[in-house]
Formats: sequence, structure tokens, C-alpha cells
Amino acid sequence: MNYKMILAYDGTRYNGWQKQGNTDRTIQGKLEQILTRMAGGPIEVFGSGRTDRGVHAEGQTANFHLKQTEEYEDKSLQILEYINTYLPEDIAVLSCEAVPERFHSRLSAARKTYRYQIEMSPKKNVFQRDYYYGLGCRLDQKKMEEAAAFLIGTHDFKSFCGNSRMKKSTVRRIDSIEFEAAGESRLHIRYTGNGFLQQMVRILTGTLIEAGLGKRAPEQMKAVLEALNRQAAGFTAPAQGLFLEKVEYGEGK
Amino acid sequence: MNYKMILAYDGTRYNGWQKQGNTDRTIQGKLEQILTRMAGGPIEVFGSGRTDRGVHAEGQTANFHLKQTEEYEDKSLQILEYINTYLPEDIAVLSCEAVPERFHSRLSAARKTYRYQIEMSPKKNVFQRDYYYGLGCRLDQKKMEEAAAFLIGTHDFKSFCGNSRMKKSTVRRIDSIEFEAAGESRLHIRYTGNGFLQQMVRILTGTLIEAGLGKRAPEQMKAVLEALNRQAAGFTAPAQGLFLEKVEYGEGK
Repeated sequence: MNYKMILAYDGTRYNGWQKQGNTDRTIQGKLEQILTRMAGGPIEVFGSGRTDRGVHAEGQTANFHLKQTEEYEDKSLQILEYINTYLPEDIAVLSCEAVPERFHSRLSAARKTYRYQIEMSPKKNVFQRDYYYGLGCRLDQKKMEEAAAFLIGTHDFKSFCGNSRMKKSTVRRIDSIEFEAAGESRLHIRYTGNGFLQQMVRILTGTLIEAGLGKRAPEQMKAVLEALNRQAAGFTAPAQGLFLEKVEYGEGK
Repeated sequence: MNYKMILAYDGTRYNGWQKQGNTDRTIQGKLEQILTRMAGGPIEVFGSGRTDRGVHAEGQTANFHLKQTEEYEDKSLQILEYINTYLPEDIAVLSCEAVPERFHSRLSAARKTYRYQIEMSPKKNVFQRDYYYGLGCRLDQKKMEEAAAFLIGTHDFKSFCGNSRMKKSTVRRIDSIEFEAAGESRLHIRYTGNGFLQQMVRILTGTLIEAGLGKRAPEQMKAVLEALNRQAAGFTAPAQGLFLEKVEYGEGK
């Protein structure tokens, strides 16, 4: 039987989603360790995509297959409880449900939404340090919105790809980039699209921040896209400001 | 010269405010270490009161004396910058100012406000785990308010004192206990008074929670106060839900 889980995690203490050999400080590694113990045999967990070291998730999606023992039996509730009992405090399974065998968290994903959180106040906030990029100065949101408009749609985002040896297609579709003021000094940027390249949201954010600081004209975005070169884009915004909000699947899944 | 500082800290990683011999995992210890290096000689930092291991502060107040080198010179801005440069990310000095020599953070304090944060949802929240007590079930706020009303005013709070060998007076004055719903599933309780005994806010909270769960009748509070015995009160609510919000001083300080 195939089970789909929705997960939240505070990525601060982890080396990202993807397991790395025998080192266990990854989200995937933690989950597989617990599920393998539960099933009494090796279980592989498929995520909707990797999140980098320090990146958080409110709605990461993953699936795994369990061999059917006897007749058809949906054990999703027991599994949910079992995993949460053994997971550390900074990882939570929010839901678990049986899904069709063909469902695959990554291959079936239709859209993803990421949120990037920026603190513009120069004051140190001891309670938010792991969840905000502490930029410490004001941004011109209007300029950032102008710049963001050039990124909407289907483009080759090679300039915004952190993997220089990427051999597959770097064409992606961005449906929306929304800006939201959170309190007086915080800016959240929400990106929705059909998929994102390695570090793409962080590089998009770094480039938009440069526009918001007046270091780049908004209309320069067009040339950045056309360059198909990582050097043309801005800096990679730090991991701790990034949250994977949700993954959407076809047919309202 | 006498300097007054207002401090914020995430208490998660610390063994509380008060320094303990040579172990350095205390807020006071961290501050004294930095100020002693700055001054080139031992500096003692006086806090408005101790906070326990794991308790947070948004407005802890402390003061320290610096020997005057030459003529009168207010160095509060340089000190503020110096300390914040060397403090770890989870401690921040929010302000620093020169105050009269007689000012003492603890002895001059007129009122203190603490806030206790409770999560009533049974869902694990990976991002708030260090700042909320995860009770996981609903509370009857009206009953808690009824119970709290018995605590307002000047009373002997011996039943709510965590130190059984306390020899000094356990009489304190509580000015207000306010309840605030934060979102759908969170309850904040704000206590203001002229001073609080060791673990007093956490024991008050534990006892009010028991009233909110229907385990104690609100009017029982009177007997709890009169018992002058720790056994009569409720459990000690865990440290991570507690914040020292602010310390007020006479003459609007």
C-alpha cells in the first residue's frame, strides 16, 4: 500500500531533506529509520523534492510503500501516531493517508509554494533568528514587485540555478510571486510554480532584494533571464528564511 | 557610572539567568564575561531577578557599574554596540543608558510583568515548541478567570513558592492576571505584580490550568492561599512557556 504524508519541520538542526549515506541528520533519514523499524524491513521515503540544510517546511509531502500483509487494510492512522511518537520535536507528520499505487510525491506534484521571510529591522530578534533572514535595512517593495513581474511565466531559469552542472532542462513555470508585509519590519515573499531548481527560490530572492535595495533596475531581470548564467543573477539568500509551504497535486490532491 | 540595560533572550539553551561558578551557560555569566573583557577588570551584572532554566525574556533589566576613567562620560551607546557584537544570537541588549548611581535593577523594581503561553491544540507545532507549553487540550477560560480573581491583591503566596526553604517574606501583591486568546488554539496569561517568588508564575499557571480543566473549583483558590503549603497548589507549568515581559521602575523609569 502507498501512503502519502504531509510533514512540517524546523530545518535548523538538519543537513536538509536528502539522506546522506549513514549520517542521520537529515529529514528523510529520520523518517526512513523510524518506518524501517516499524515495518521490520527497509522502507524508502520519496519526498516531493529536496530542501537544503536549514530550510524549513510547513507542508513537505512524501510517500512510501508498505507491503500488504493480509487483505487490504488502511493503516494510515496507526502509522501517523507511530511516526510522531518516535520523531524528534522539530519534525511532525501532519497527516497520513493511503493513496493509489501510482502516486509519487515528486513525479505527481503539480505545483509548489515556497515562502521567504525577511526581517528589515536592524534590531536583533532573538526569537525569530532561525526563521528570518536578518537583512537589517528597508526594501523598496514596489521595485521588487516590478522586478518580480519579469519572472512570471515559463522561462529558462538557468541563471537562477545553484547547480552549475545541471544537465536536465532548467525551464520552469512561475505562476505568482506575492509580497506580504508582516508587521512593520518584515516582508514575506511567496513563490508558486510548477517546480523550482536547486536554490532557485533563494537566488530569486537574493536578486529581488538587490532590486529592492536599488542595486539593480527592475527591468534588468529580463537580461538576467536571457544570460542563462548564474553569474548574472544576485546572491543566494540564506537558508533560514525559506519555508516550503505546500505541494499541490492534480485532481485536488 | 551606573548603566541600565534592557535584555531579550531565548532561554532554551541556558541554565537560567544566575551564574553558577565557572559554568558559563547562564545569561548573567555571558554578560559578565563580555563586560569584564571590555572593562579590563571584573564587572558584576545585577539582574531584576533570576529566570529559571529555559525561561525567556523580552524585557529583563540589569545594571552594572563601570569605573569612571576621566571626567563624566556617558558611554552607553558604545557599550550597547560592544556587547551585542560579542553576545550569541539568542541574547540581545535592546537598550543601554546611564542611570543614577543608586539605581539597582532588583531593589529599585516597582512592578514586573510575566506572560505564560499555552498551546491547546494537540497538533505538534515544530516552530513554537520552545515557546509554548504544549498542553494539547482545551481550557475553560471563564473558570480560569474566576479562579484568578481570588489571587489579585496582596496575599501570602507561600503555597505558590517553589523554594520550600524560603525564609524571607512570601507576601506579594498581584495587580492583574489577564487572559488573551492568541489565534484559535493558544492562550496567553499575563501576570503583573510587585514581585514574584521562585517558580511562582509557573505554579500559579499550573493551578489555573487545573481550574480550566475542571479538576479544581475556582473558589478553591482561597483555601489554596490559606494553606500556606506548596502541596495545596497545582503543578509547576514547564519553563518554556514563560516570558519575562518587562520590569517597571518608579518615576516612569
